[in-house]
Amino acid sequence: MSERIWRHLHLCPSGDPDGTIVDAALAVRDGNIEWFGPASDLPAELSSWPSEDLGGAWVTPSLVDCHTHIVFGGHRADEFAMRLAGVGYEEIARRGGGIVSTVRATRAADEATLLDDAARRLEPLIVEGVAAIEIKSGYGLDLATERKMLRVARELGRRYPVSVYTTFLGAHALPPEFAGRPDDYIDEVCERMLPALADEGLVDAVDVFCERIGFSRAQSERVLDAAARRGLSVKMHAEQLSANGGTALAARYGALSADHLEFLDEAGVAAMKKAGTVAVLLPGAYYFIRETQLPPVDLLRRYGVPIALATDCNPGTSPSASLLAMLNMGCTLFRLTVTEALQGVTCHAARALGRSDRHGVIEVGRRADFVAWSVETLAELAYWIGRPLASRVVRAGVTVFERGSFLPRAIGDGP
Amino acid sequence: MSERIWRHLHLCPSGDPDGTIVDAALAVRDGNIEWFGPASDLPAELSSWPSEDLGGAWVTPSLVDCHTHIVFGGHRADEFAMRLAGVGYEEIARRGGGIVSTVRATRAADEATLLDDAARRLEPLIVEGVAAIEIKSGYGLDLATERKMLRVARELGRRYPVSVYTTFLGAHALPPEFAGRPDDYIDEVCERMLPALADEGLVDAVDVFCERIGFSRAQSERVLDAAARRGLSVKMHAEQLSANGGTALAARYGALSADHLEFLDEAGVAAMKKAGTVAVLLPGAYYFIRETQLPPVDLLRRYGVPIALATDCNPGTSPSASLLAMLNMGCTLFRLTVTEALQGVTCHAARALGRSDRHGVIEVGRRADFVAWSVETLAELAYWIGRPLASRVVRAGVTVFERGSFLPRAIGDGP
Ligand SMILES: [Zn+2]
Ligand SMILES: [Zn+2]
Repeated sequence: MSERIWRHLHLCPSGDPDGTIVDAALAVRDGNIEWFGPASDLPAELSSWPSEDLGGAWVTPSLVDCHTHIVFGGHRADEFAMRLAGVGYEEIARRGGGIVSTVRATRAADEATLLDDAARRLEPLIVEGVAAIEIKSGYGLDLATERKMLRVARELGRRYPVSVYTTFLGAHALPPEFAGRPDDYIDEVCERMLPALADEGLVDAVDVFCERIGFSRAQSERVLDAAARRGLSVKMHAEQLSANGGTALAARYGALSADHLEFLDEAGVAAMKKAGTVAVLLPGAYYFIRETQLPPVDLLRRYGVPIALATDCNPGTSPSASLLAMLNMGCTLFRLTVTEALQGVTCHAARALGRSDRHGVIEVGRRADFVAWSVETLAELAYWIGRPLASRVVRAGVTVFERGSFLPRAIGDGP
Repeated sequence: MSERIWRHLHLCPSGDPDGTIVDAALAVRDGNIEWFGPASDLPAELSSWPSEDLGGAWVTPSLVDCHTHIVFGGHRADEFAMRLAGVGYEEIARRGGGIVSTVRATRAADEATLLDDAARRLEPLIVEGVAAIEIKSGYGLDLATERKMLRVARELGRRYPVSVYTTFLGAHALPPEFAGRPDDYIDEVCERMLPALADEGLVDAVDVFCERIGFSRAQSERVLDAAARRGLSVKMHAEQLSANGGTALAARYGALSADHLEFLDEAGVAAMKKAGTVAVLLPGAYYFIRETQLPPVDLLRRYGVPIALATDCNPGTSPSASLLAMLNMGCTLFRLTVTEALQGVTCHAARALGRSDRHGVIEVGRRADFVAWSVETLAELAYWIGRPLASRVVRAGVTVFERGSFLPRAIGDGP
């Protein structure tokens, strides 16, 4: 039985800075939260527990990254360089670039390599305070490779102090083997891949890329339908590049989330509200592909649709391993308020995973997952660009990361 | 006498990936580079030196951040939050926000606090591979506080393994004491502050903010002239918000650099070329203030003006502590090529400081300052967003930072 009081902190239990308890204390027993409140109200029977001083840090719930493709083979840095050097999309495709190159690299990689590569992207997220992450398949596009990706995702959750939620995204792109036969591939996804992977316990949710360069609404509906018939939660890559009614379709299936949403219209927003679907905004992709169409943030606010933010970590359109960078972009580019952005990576992101019960808030009786930040105000989490801010990451009451101070070694030779 | 061979690396001595020596070796004696080349060409007399394996890392010269305001009091995260919450500029000014709030906080802070705050922003830069940094004054706007800022800048260079170059930016903004009397303030800058600080050895260069919200061309010229008369190098915050011919003026004074440059026209570019002035682009500020006018990158290329990139680290318009983030933004937003971006934070940035002799390239006889990167191609340095990539930072042959692998502690409770 382990008991501890965390002292000398300011506690923001909900992700809303206005709800912060200044000069708080937090009591943890056996990995769960036993009590929190103003330090001056600490119950007498807890005051003898061993305590740890957080040095006046601000404490929030651990972060949740609710949309990633963090498991993939290779990278596309050379393609990025080629494009900047003026090589056109067609020429890049001719040289084997684009998503096809990631599919090829992912198919070719063994599980150990995929795991190692993904782990090197996951570590900075954990160090930043991420305790739960969604990981999609979708670069295999055949049963064996989709399985391999989902197994790697599960293994990351076993090896690292992070909860992994897997999403089967077989309908991410058309594999070369099915060129010109998208409906046949959707058959394969619905009748073979999804049942097999779900039976193996590898699928927490099902996603589909509904877009002119992905799958049509009718094809997408078949995937949602197959998932629903198995009782699986669904979500959708929706209206990123065009307004196509995908979001309303997703809402009809009670989707946990619809993601991207740059071209979402008011009818779609209303449908999301009615279905309780979370709007997952992905400013990293917006930034990286230099999109100019902004997601309809005002409409989402007006209808009270919860907004989440995620990295969308992927090699083609958002090579990002920082959720704090997305917080900054969500505010700077999408004009979210600081509270919206913070709730977007805590409670609303947890809801987008269908796991509001486990993640996103600090509450008595829940697991003690939290982050201590070396800031003077929580707005700093959204304000700084590329500055490490988490001083301690705690999961189930145990410190899994602590920022050592950098030990300077001056070289005494002047400039 | 210390001797070492660094083995098992790919060496990019110039910042141009095309010049990379695959399977290289690097010999360092007494902190200086003795030899480098293909490992197979290692001279016999060096092969007995003690060696260290870099595990196949890519090695570049250490980075140079040639434009920062990293020493300042307070921060403006709450102002950022207010603006996102819809509070207008005037109301923010009424509540004491804007640059005036930073001047107030900087004047109020003691040296130890300024040093500590700046160090926490400097550390992530060093860990990213920055070995030389320019630090401007300009939040004091009175002699005592400008001195305090420059003294703190010098002290950072003594305490940390980084070369600090100081820039006196007294003409950054009009202090409240001189409201309505900008010419009187320029008198103060030129006749009192600059001579005093230069005599104290605190000024490596002089800068001025030439802009309608800063100082006029005539006022800026007085500052440049005062600096030139003392034999000091000059630079300019030029044409960030409007085309005003500031750059041509700076070039007339042989400025090391003209910085920002969004509104620069062809005549200004030609003047820079003739004067050998470096174009310092600051994509963090462009991004943070949501500027839409792009700097004239094609013209700069056409005229062969060297381009540098810097963080512009400052609390009002670029709260950034990551030069790699600027590399990504320089490519993503300004469409620099990867080579341009890499040279923009190495050799061209060194030139913007007037210290091409000390920084920015790896050369026999120079100090052994370099960074080992855990990447497969140097394009990754510009491609990833928010991913730590430096595996080792070496200054004068000594490792000042090494990335420990993050030790995972799985909590065996599943998601
Ligand atoms: Zn995605
Ligand atoms: Zn500046």
